[in-house]
Amino acid sequence: MYSATQIRDLPGLIGQTVTVYGWVATTRPKGKIAFTVLRDGTGYLQCVAVKQELGEQAWETVHQLTQETSLAVTGEVREDKRSPGGVELGVQSLTILGGSTDFPISKKEHGTAFLFEQRHLWLRSRRQVAIMRIRNEVVQAIRDFYYQRDFTLVDTPLLTGAVGESAGTLFETEYFDLGKAYLAQTGQLYVEAAAAALGKVYCFGPTFRAERSKTRRHLTEFWMVEPEVAWNDSDDNMKLQEDFVSYVVERCLERCREPLEVLERDRTRLEQVTPPFPRVSYTDAIEKLKQAGCDVRWGQDLGGDDETTLAQMFDRPVFVYDYPREVKAFYMKQNPEDPRTVKCNDCLAPEGYGEIIGGSQREDDHDLLLGRIREEGLPEEAYGWYLDLRRYGTFIHSGFGLGVERTVAWISGVPHVREVIAFPRMMTRLYP
Amino acid sequence: MYSATQIRDLPGLIGQTVTVYGWVATTRPKGKIAFTVLRDGTGYLQCVAVKQELGEQAWETVHQLTQETSLAVTGEVREDKRSPGGVELGVQSLTILGGSTDFPISKKEHGTAFLFEQRHLWLRSRRQVAIMRIRNEVVQAIRDFYYQRDFTLVDTPLLTGAVGESAGTLFETEYFDLGKAYLAQTGQLYVEAAAAALGKVYCFGPTFRAERSKTRRHLTEFWMVEPEVAWNDSDDNMKLQEDFVSYVVERCLERCREPLEVLERDRTRLEQVTPPFPRVSYTDAIEKLKQAGCDVRWGQDLGGDDETTLAQMFDRPVFVYDYPREVKAFYMKQNPEDPRTVKCNDCLAPEGYGEIIGGSQREDDHDLLLGRIREEGLPEEAYGWYLDLRRYGTFIHSGFGLGVERTVAWISGVPHVREVIAFPRMMTRLYP
Repeated sequence: MYSATQIRDLPGLIGQTVTVYGWVATTRPKGKIAFTVLRDGTGYLQCVAVKQELGEQAWETVHQLTQETSLAVTGEVREDKRSPGGVELGVQSLTILGGSTDFPISKKEHGTAFLFEQRHLWLRSRRQVAIMRIRNEVVQAIRDFYYQRDFTLVDTPLLTGAVGESAGTLFETEYFDLGKAYLAQTGQLYVEAAAAALGKVYCFGPTFRAERSKTRRHLTEFWMVEPEVAWNDSDDNMKLQEDFVSYVVERCLERCREPLEVLERDRTRLEQVTPPFPRVSYTDAIEKLKQAGCDVRWGQDLGGDDETTLAQMFDRPVFVYDYPREVKAFYMKQNPEDPRTVKCNDCLAPEGYGEIIGGSQREDDHDLLLGRIREEGLPEEAYGWYLDLRRYGTFIHSGFGLGVERTVAWISGVPHVREVIAFPRMMTRLYP
Repeated sequence: MYSATQIRDLPGLIGQTVTVYGWVATTRPKGKIAFTVLRDGTGYLQCVAVKQELGEQAWETVHQLTQETSLAVTGEVREDKRSPGGVELGVQSLTILGGSTDFPISKKEHGTAFLFEQRHLWLRSRRQVAIMRIRNEVVQAIRDFYYQRDFTLVDTPLLTGAVGESAGTLFETEYFDLGKAYLAQTGQLYVEAAAAALGKVYCFGPTFRAERSKTRRHLTEFWMVEPEVAWNDSDDNMKLQEDFVSYVVERCLERCREPLEVLERDRTRLEQVTPPFPRVSYTDAIEKLKQAGCDVRWGQDLGGDDETTLAQMFDRPVFVYDYPREVKAFYMKQNPEDPRTVKCNDCLAPEGYGEIIGGSQREDDHDLLLGRIREEGLPEEAYGWYLDLRRYGTFIHSGFGLGVERTVAWISGVPHVREVIAFPRMMTRLYP
């Protein structure tokens, strides 16, 4: 395989005889001719077997093929304008490598619970392959964006001491003789330390929420990318976000044409995603929502429905900035112009997808930060190292976290995040 | 900052007046002239302040600078051939942004325990910055290698059910109402399922070992990349490995010239890392080790010292293949030519770094695999989905895992893996 022929490469090999390895997607013998569609992960290939041209034995083998039988098939690559790749294979010989009896997933409708129980096999479907390809492109685009802009990747730890946003939603485990460790919900505090060493940094890894939540936007385990930039204020932070999100969307439009087609994604909605993104202060957002008939008041966090309503007023992602400090995390910088608020922003995706980014400028004043830690009743000793960043050459800095699954769901046009990760973890699912 | 001047860019701005933000690395007032070296994560810049050219107040400010004071400094970029970047800054004005009193890490020697306790500040040192840059390059090179070769990234779950190599070394946590979940030691079984969907896949994320181990090659939490390829046999697998490792080393040689210099890495040793790598069967390796005076016998696993001895016989990484099945995992393919062994390989890095890769062709025969699961006393029901891959179109496939920290340590020439990750997790360390 390492040097074998892949279906993706066949359009360049018309007239040649090749051997392809793959699995049967569909098979349809019709009298003296049989049409078998083979998939190998790089594409789909129609193989045409003609009784007269095959020996008796090979023709019998063709009739033994079932969905997901694995085989090696040798034949001539022929032009065929009606086929998706523009080619088909004229079968000369074939060998069954692995049989497949009663493959559990067929063309008929299956329930969601059943499909997730069969996730290891469901991944082979055309729709799931398309989603995985888009996810692959999104992740590589993220990596490329930061690499090309001279950010340094800093992998932050998942096993952490008592540092977390909200202890009630943490998974915990015994850690040797050191007591309990918690699974990180963010790498942010660590990348702040790294930003003082390297200037522009990011972390990108899995994070965990032990929340008893069952919405279409929540997973127990999901991936998040968190850039942090020394000397960036809240305004710079939003500029970075809009450039970043636009880049990722553009990469998918450019390089995921076929998967987006499989998913019947409306490309025109994605083509509108270019900077600058509209910016609405939290205070203005509350007014807009009131005018739209929502039951909100200043001081409350925005709910999922409020976000959807607000996002629907714009044709591209929208920033909502400077929230009340009560509804946001302790490390966000107090707004000098209105100390009831903090210098932060969310980024809401259109089409009902809601929050994909939360970001902020960080509190860089040692005493204000210490005050907030005490106000929240957080364990001061666990934050000693974090306070050090404000003791030794404190610096303006800001950053954000973008949720990969929400972003992939939005770009793919898939309603539920559980479908955009290979083996989703939810309150009720730990298998396969 | 998002559009501000970075030290790295100054050589192209000679003659211009710029403002740079950064931290004081060293400062040295000498009578009527002061030399301050500023670092900003992209480089180091000598700032020259002359009393006569500065106002009284600014000259006083220069004398208040201490190690790690953060400041904004404005001045003219001047050519200076003796400086590392070829430029220095003629200071016109400066503003202290954050003071720094008694920064804990100075030029003097510190103990290792102390430095790891101060890891959040130690990261600012020239050596640590160099290591982080090499790690950044290694990770991006890994991503690029697979992306360019049309592998699809498949992020595998870290929270898993009772599927693991050795339950004794797993971290466990309560998972809602589903009982215990375990932190994954590998994503391999999952990428095997994905390979049947997508052909060529890889996962790349953190993994965990709850081992009471304190060697210089072990971390509790480390990153691993695991490619898996449908239709690749053990031989193809080694070809992929040697191309891959050579690519990563070459990228670092090309793009990490300066960090490698900071670490005084002998480049000539890395330049030898080109394919093909020598291949030694386990059986031959035992003979070679006996001849070298090692106390080994056929059937035992190789120890760290044996690996070092063996690796020293070669000028580049070496493959040891086809180990006895007793010392390897249940999923490795039985060797048809010698059923006492399995189709697997380790890859040993030179210069005493030892194993950086473990890989194998996977058992693709349903009954042989089921037999091994029973032999090992593994919970059969947990492997139902894994056995399904052999029920529905089984396929030859192979893959491997490369440990990122061991690879970065080797390329950097750093003796201990704990220094090549920003916030290492070890038996005795969970902070910062």
